[in-house]
Amino acid sequence: MMQCIFNNRNDRKSELAKADRLAPETVTWSIPAKSVVTLDDDPGSWQHTKAVAAYPADLLKDKILSAKERLVLDFGETLVGKVRLKLESPQADSPVRLRILAAELPYEAKCDPETFDGGLGRAWLQEELITAYDFPAEIELPNRYSLRYLVINVLSCPHKSKVKITRAEVIARSAVGKDLPRPLPQWDNELALIDAACARTLRNCMQKIAEDGPKRDRRLWLGDLRLQALVNHVTFQRYDQIERSIRILCACKDDRGMIPGAVIMRPEPHNSSFILDYSLLFSRLLLEHCRFSGDLDIGGEFFPIAEKQLTFYRDKLDKDGSFNNPGYWLFIDHCDELDRSTPIACTAIRALESLAELAKILNMPESKINRLQEETVVWRNTLRRSSFDTDSGMLSSGSSRQFSWASQIWGILAGVLSPEEGRCILQDWEKRENIIKPVSPYLMHYLLEAFRMCGMENELTRTIRSYWGGMIKHGADTFWEVYLPDDDFFTPYGSDPRNNSACHAWSGTPGYFLRTIPER
Amino acid sequence: MMQCIFNNRNDRKSELAKADRLAPETVTWSIPAKSVVTLDDDPGSWQHTKAVAAYPADLLKDKILSAKERLVLDFGETLVGKVRLKLESPQADSPVRLRILAAELPYEAKCDPETFDGGLGRAWLQEELITAYDFPAEIELPNRYSLRYLVINVLSCPHKSKVKITRAEVIARSAVGKDLPRPLPQWDNELALIDAACARTLRNCMQKIAEDGPKRDRRLWLGDLRLQALVNHVTFQRYDQIERSIRILCACKDDRGMIPGAVIMRPEPHNSSFILDYSLLFSRLLLEHCRFSGDLDIGGEFFPIAEKQLTFYRDKLDKDGSFNNPGYWLFIDHCDELDRSTPIACTAIRALESLAELAKILNMPESKINRLQEETVVWRNTLRRSSFDTDSGMLSSGSSRQFSWASQIWGILAGVLSPEEGRCILQDWEKRENIIKPVSPYLMHYLLEAFRMCGMENELTRTIRSYWGGMIKHGADTFWEVYLPDDDFFTPYGSDPRNNSACHAWSGTPGYFLRTIPER
Repeated sequence: MMQCIFNNRNDRKSELAKADRLAPETVTWSIPAKSVVTLDDDPGSWQHTKAVAAYPADLLKDKILSAKERLVLDFGETLVGKVRLKLESPQADSPVRLRILAAELPYEAKCDPETFDGGLGRAWLQEELITAYDFPAEIELPNRYSLRYLVINVLSCPHKSKVKITRAEVIARSAVGKDLPRPLPQWDNELALIDAACARTLRNCMQKIAEDGPKRDRRLWLGDLRLQALVNHVTFQRYDQIERSIRILCACKDDRGMIPGAVIMRPEPHNSSFILDYSLLFSRLLLEHCRFSGDLDIGGEFFPIAEKQLTFYRDKLDKDGSFNNPGYWLFIDHCDELDRSTPIACTAIRALESLAELAKILNMPESKINRLQEETVVWRNTLRRSSFDTDSGMLSSGSSRQFSWASQIWGILAGVLSPEEGRCILQDWEKRENIIKPVSPYLMHYLLEAFRMCGMENELTRTIRSYWGGMIKHGADTFWEVYLPDDDFFTPYGSDPRNNSACHAWSGTPGYFLRTIPER
Repeated sequence: MMQCIFNNRNDRKSELAKADRLAPETVTWSIPAKSVVTLDDDPGSWQHTKAVAAYPADLLKDKILSAKERLVLDFGETLVGKVRLKLESPQADSPVRLRILAAELPYEAKCDPETFDGGLGRAWLQEELITAYDFPAEIELPNRYSLRYLVINVLSCPHKSKVKITRAEVIARSAVGKDLPRPLPQWDNELALIDAACARTLRNCMQKIAEDGPKRDRRLWLGDLRLQALVNHVTFQRYDQIERSIRILCACKDDRGMIPGAVIMRPEPHNSSFILDYSLLFSRLLLEHCRFSGDLDIGGEFFPIAEKQLTFYRDKLDKDGSFNNPGYWLFIDHCDELDRSTPIACTAIRALESLAELAKILNMPESKINRLQEETVVWRNTLRRSSFDTDSGMLSSGSSRQFSWASQIWGILAGVLSPEEGRCILQDWEKRENIIKPVSPYLMHYLLEAFRMCGMENELTRTIRSYWGGMIKHGADTFWEVYLPDDDFFTPYGSDPRNNSACHAWSGTPGYFLRTIPER
């Protein structure tokens, strides 16, 4: 087996050079504004805001604008790209100044950025101030946006001459292509819309790198990447981009050999967050990538790094086999009150099991495979002994013996709970009380995986329809980073939901399940 | 004599091509920020605002910025150019957003653009919104500014990491060079500062074209150009740029053959305003350009166009020799109540006299020269008869027999009033009551010309010290488009003085007089 725990700077550089050879040619296409809309207050709409078409954007070229006027353009679809505007003002004797806001959702478009009070910073709102001195002015706004709506406030224009916006378009871009895959013939409209939103979410996130969210953050996250790889497999099949991401993440591991949770690409790629559950996902990501792409070489190349991630868990096990968290950041879900002891143990078990499977398909020595499989069983039994609650048939977590869906979901995925136990637990899961619920679409994805593992295909589809279909009913055409059906304004980032991303990699996975329904 | 009243489109194109061959190579140089200042309310300072140095800009690189912080940089000098900033934010996990205002004067820098309520439009305020995603960020602000101050509002920055501005510079530019000419040895400090401000004003206005004001308007104006040509002659001596401007203005004349008051350069050079007194200035501009540059060919080439401008006046004279204004825009000064009949007649007389002088140096036939000179005398006598008031020894204007300095100044320059009469009138001119005063530095320039014509060199220097020296005492290092010593907030453009330009071509002429004091 090849040794490749490269820690020094030269190794990183040469590894990044390999990733760079896979840098994509971005596809671009033009989407003109479809209509001019009003953003109405409406308690019945998501975030109490409804975009209502006022007139087709074709009529814009005859619409004379004056100072203090406000226009909201709807491009008909959530897109990632640059925005181009053409302004005409014959005989203009002074410039035109526009205040512009690109937005994914109607509420974000409706609110004044001046009132922003979110946790991650106003700079993530997609604001611009544009001055056109010469006419006709062909303007390309300076940054790349994720948007469906473009709000244009005319701050100032020549009062004697006429100003018109004679063209407005998004030059959309993606690393994986423009067109979404066709729906399967057996689907109804709801499933077709959900599937299309999944593919669009992935398409929009796949830029120069696989981004978590093209509006905010824009980083390569390991947790998101594994989910992107699933959807990619059933849609664009751009395995080269998954390989590129794997290479970047591995190149950016720290001196201990830990793969970061996230990589920031500039000025040079560097790690930004270490999250133990994300690092442990790497063996599963690598295993699935080998299976999906058929490329076993990359499995062999990165097996040692995958194996290394387990040591960050293993080395902190006490003599009882319990994990003593030495201060690692554990994510699991966007939920402060969640006890993560059981979920992280299950994540480690599944990681070890995936590593054993990877060793197997790589034709590694039986002895190695056996050792990994045996350790998986030991860890599984240890956790079962400490955490299985015979009264409820569920796993508890921590010294407070907390019950959470996170523990049950990961318990099923790790094989600590059997599929039969899982079926009992997951039956009518939404009606259960006194159990910590999933907060993010990320953990909701793992619920879908648990359904599949338990053979609960009906529950799986029902949950896709109720949760992801709920976003569709609220107008989504890409899936949201954050979605609590009962709380329009929930955000994990302070108090302003405008920092939430409405097109987020980890939310777009139902398409994977819909396109891989097992044969009966 | 060559015939060149070209009216069709092809002629214009080929004329513009000749002007384009004279397009300048712009000189650029870097000026780093000098200090960080506060903008204090101070009733004793111009516009009640005082810029007070807080610390040297060198210390900026150690200054950690946080959201909602505001910095005002002082570049130590009024400059025209692009602004570059370097932002550093190690380990930034979110972008930085800055709201930026470039300003010429402290008051303009102090006020929030949101409160702007001026007549020519907020778009002339030099505002930007900048988002930096990647660090270190080397930012060049998108537009060209005329500025001494740069106000930086930090709207948003990563709260966990540190953000610093580690470099701030203006990449200054001019068509005529960087360095100002040395002061003459006999000058005191006040005259040296006034002369430098004149040269700096011209330098800053001389860009790809000769602009009237680099902050606002940015057009080529005939009235400004003649004054720029005077200062250019005693400073940078870039006669090629004056020739270029002459060619552009002539190429943009209308179908009647009238030279426009102003040209807007883009998308293609086109006329924007027809002002009869400006068009009539053309013969004087051309005469002086021939004298200054020694290039008589251009005088011959454009003599017919200069001659043509007189017909717009001559054709509207009634049988008494009075001008019946058929709706021409007459400027003379920024003063609504001013009766312009006598000033425009005097402007025409001086134009005709200049044309005769031009014919002479071009060695045109005696008969032609005589005809022009004779007509000058006729016009002069006609005006004298109709407008000279024997009681006051001054010229009146219009049916209301209005007395204005504009009439006296132009009467002296046109020879309708003799130098002796002029001396009587101009003696202690500031103390006179019941006479319409000059409002703009533009008419103040013609007062200086009148002083010189009357041999009143002491009055000339005293007026330069009191009026232009007044701006210097208020902190000017370039001269202002608008200056009424008793009214800090006067503007001809609505109610907000922030549309006034603080670096304006027509205000920078004292240097011409200071450097051309006639020998006794």
